Amino acid sequence: MMPVDEHLRILLEACATVPRRTSPVPVAEAHGCVLAQDVRSAVDVPAFANSAMDGYAVRAAELAGAGDRPVVLPVAGDIPAGRTDRVTLEPGTTLRIMTGAALPDGADAVVPVELTDGGTQRVTLRQEPLAGAHVRPAGDDLSRDELALTAGTFVDARVLALLVSLGHPRVEVVLPPRVAVLSTGDELVEPGGAAGHGTVVDSNGPMLVAVLREHGFTAERVRAVADDEQGFRARLDEVLLTHDAVITTGGVSAGAYDTVKAVLARDGEVEFRGIAMQPGKPQGFGLVRAGDGRRVPVFTLPGNPVSAMVSYQVFVAPALRLLAARPAEGLAGVEAVADDGWRTSAGRTQLARVRLRREDDGLHATLAGGQGSHVLGALAHADALAVVPAEVDEVLPGARLTCLLLRPLPGKESLA
Amino acid sequence: MMPVDEHLRILLEACATVPRRTSPVPVAEAHGCVLAQDVRSAVDVPAFANSAMDGYAVRAAELAGAGDRPVVLPVAGDIPAGRTDRVTLEPGTTLRIMTGAALPDGADAVVPVELTDGGTQRVTLRQEPLAGAHVRPAGDDLSRDELALTAGTFVDARVLALLVSLGHPRVEVVLPPRVAVLSTGDELVEPGGAAGHGTVVDSNGPMLVAVLREHGFTAERVRAVADDEQGFRARLDEVLLTHDAVITTGGVSAGAYDTVKAVLARDGEVEFRGIAMQPGKPQGFGLVRAGDGRRVPVFTLPGNPVSAMVSYQVFVAPALRLLAARPAEGLAGVEAVADDGWRTSAGRTQLARVRLRREDDGLHATLAGGQGSHVLGALAHADALAVVPAEVDEVLPGARLTCLLLRPLPGKESLA
Repeated sequence: MMPVDEHLRILLEACATVPRRTSPVPVAEAHGCVLAQDVRSAVDVPAFANSAMDGYAVRAAELAGAGDRPVVLPVAGDIPAGRTDRVTLEPGTTLRIMTGAALPDGADAVVPVELTDGGTQRVTLRQEPLAGAHVRPAGDDLSRDELALTAGTFVDARVLALLVSLGHPRVEVVLPPRVAVLSTGDELVEPGGAAGHGTVVDSNGPMLVAVLREHGFTAERVRAVADDEQGFRARLDEVLLTHDAVITTGGVSAGAYDTVKAVLARDGEVEFRGIAMQPGKPQGFGLVRAGDGRRVPVFTLPGNPVSAMVSYQVFVAPALRLLAARPAEGLAGVEAVADDGWRTSAGRTQLARVRLRREDDGLHATLAGGQGSHVLGALAHADALAVVPAEVDEVLPGARLTCLLLRPLPGKESLA
Repeated sequence: MMPVDEHLRILLEACATVPRRTSPVPVAEAHGCVLAQDVRSAVDVPAFANSAMDGYAVRAAELAGAGDRPVVLPVAGDIPAGRTDRVTLEPGTTLRIMTGAALPDGADAVVPVELTDGGTQRVTLRQEPLAGAHVRPAGDDLSRDELALTAGTFVDARVLALLVSLGHPRVEVVLPPRVAVLSTGDELVEPGGAAGHGTVVDSNGPMLVAVLREHGFTAERVRAVADDEQGFRARLDEVLLTHDAVITTGGVSAGAYDTVKAVLARDGEVEFRGIAMQPGKPQGFGLVRAGDGRRVPVFTLPGNPVSAMVSYQVFVAPALRLLAARPAEGLAGVEAVADDGWRTSAGRTQLARVRLRREDDGLHATLAGGQGSHVLGALAHADALAVVPAEVDEVLPGARLTCLLLRPLPGKESLA
């Protein structure tokens, strides 16, 4: 059996050779993509000197001593935010100015409205401002042509805000991979149906599409296909043309009807291996040539849903992040004390489904339920996967385990 | 000024009085929703006794001593997964059976193919199985009518897998709130454009829609509206009809052209307050009556993008989670040592934009850049918001700060 990290390494090395899918997109649509180019600002940010406060634009020198003896000036007009004509502040006057509005020519400071009587014809100013007070100079944050964002940056909401402010209509990005999920097996009933004698609802399809979307990939479920070699091959060839990665579930173990393995092992397109992990032992991966010549990563996961989900987290998600040019992330790990004891398969890394509980002395882990690779209840209710190293064959109560979080630990909404 | 937690409490109490939006949906579409009902299994899971391995279905008693003296049996046929007719195992024979296939009547154990010669006409079996070996009984995970999921459960990918297996076509859920984002201001240019004299690109709209989507809410950006009271009111009334919450940005401070405040303070529909936080001091919140009589939460955030994002995280996200019936979550907090020192506004909780760095002695925080509430660069590059309590007016280098994570800390993909 191959160690988990060895299989992961092989698969990441192969995915590193696959060209990323890049495209120019309108800036506002770059969310969830990775920048494929450095982005310099097309404009000064801010584009013009503007007021940081609601108040009055003044010539600072005219307010000498105003802190002790308030100065009264005529209000020559208003500059609301959004006024785009050039305004001049005449000596001996003031202009009422709003936050973000352009500073008039001649003005060099703003007195906040709170330090005045708020007058609209004449105003009493009670502060002697320093030159530059409450003024944001043009280009204060970024000068035109300054490097603002580097290639490889993941565009989350906050990066998007900066990006749209740089004044470009479009930007070159690495698009998230389009992933097809193809469940296989004669026994599968479509979601919305009920299992009868010999059948089971396809839970892998909806589950994998959902987790792919949670992870920011573009995912599409292909209707489950029967264990028919020609039918499977035809469906696979179809989805290879329109997707950047394919995940299949089922048909990869030692059975006589293991269609996925039969079809993809034949020409060596996919390498099938036993991996030293539990669940998730039978794994296959390869770059399969699509009709248009592209080599598309195909991950063939076991059919048991717990195995499929664990395999997705351990192998597929890292590979897809690489295809997306996103930073390595992994599942966040926390340390917890095992309250239960249990035996594990020697020589295989176990990923046990556990619930976590906060105690005064830290986190405690208990088994979430049956650890069979078909048991959906324990998977659904687990907070984390507890990693039991391959060389350990029994977890004793009190052991400290690294637990990979499958959902955020419960938090509190307040800052206090 | 009102303390942060006081404003949050008022806003959560008001949102708790707003009816949740519930609806029956096809089970496969429940992802991202919260269950509005307990869900019992409509079927036994699994629906039938089945094989946990690829192998041979046997009567265990017929293999007495097979561990020492292998037993040879004729193979009477195959049971692939997905075979739905009832099959009987005749005494003195075996049936080849695949993982997940229905155990034939009369059989009580499965011998894995690895412990046989894999024959298809006659097979040599080298194990004496215990009765029940490698058999998953019907209803082993869940009996028909057993409670499988409780109302209030958030449907993530793994809960979805369990849900679709329970055999129901539809389920009653709380739908995620539909949120409208309405940027206001004469100065706003649409994203894709560039700022000129007196104007600025609307970054709040795309930013808030993006973070709402990251948080699993349904979000729509309404084209920025000018500082025109009638125009704003008309647009607001329109979106109130089709949304469950509205976020506005801009127009809430002390300026003469603060449209949002002017319109919504008039009839007391929205309460405007100064909150003891920095950034994000001017806040407004209220339940505004829509044309159809519903009371819709309206959050009026300041127009500076840093203030808008911080206000979203501190006030709006918790309120929307409540409307979605999702568990409290907050931003995950970590402790870090401040490498910089800086002064803060006394009496206001500061949320400083910081970058985090791992050192041998733990996490270290440095200011991400200019802390002005308009500086998008520092916001984009920050890893976390460092919380400086209201009673602290100077952070000294070496101080320990709680930092709320805005993005995951960099991880590693391997389990090792």
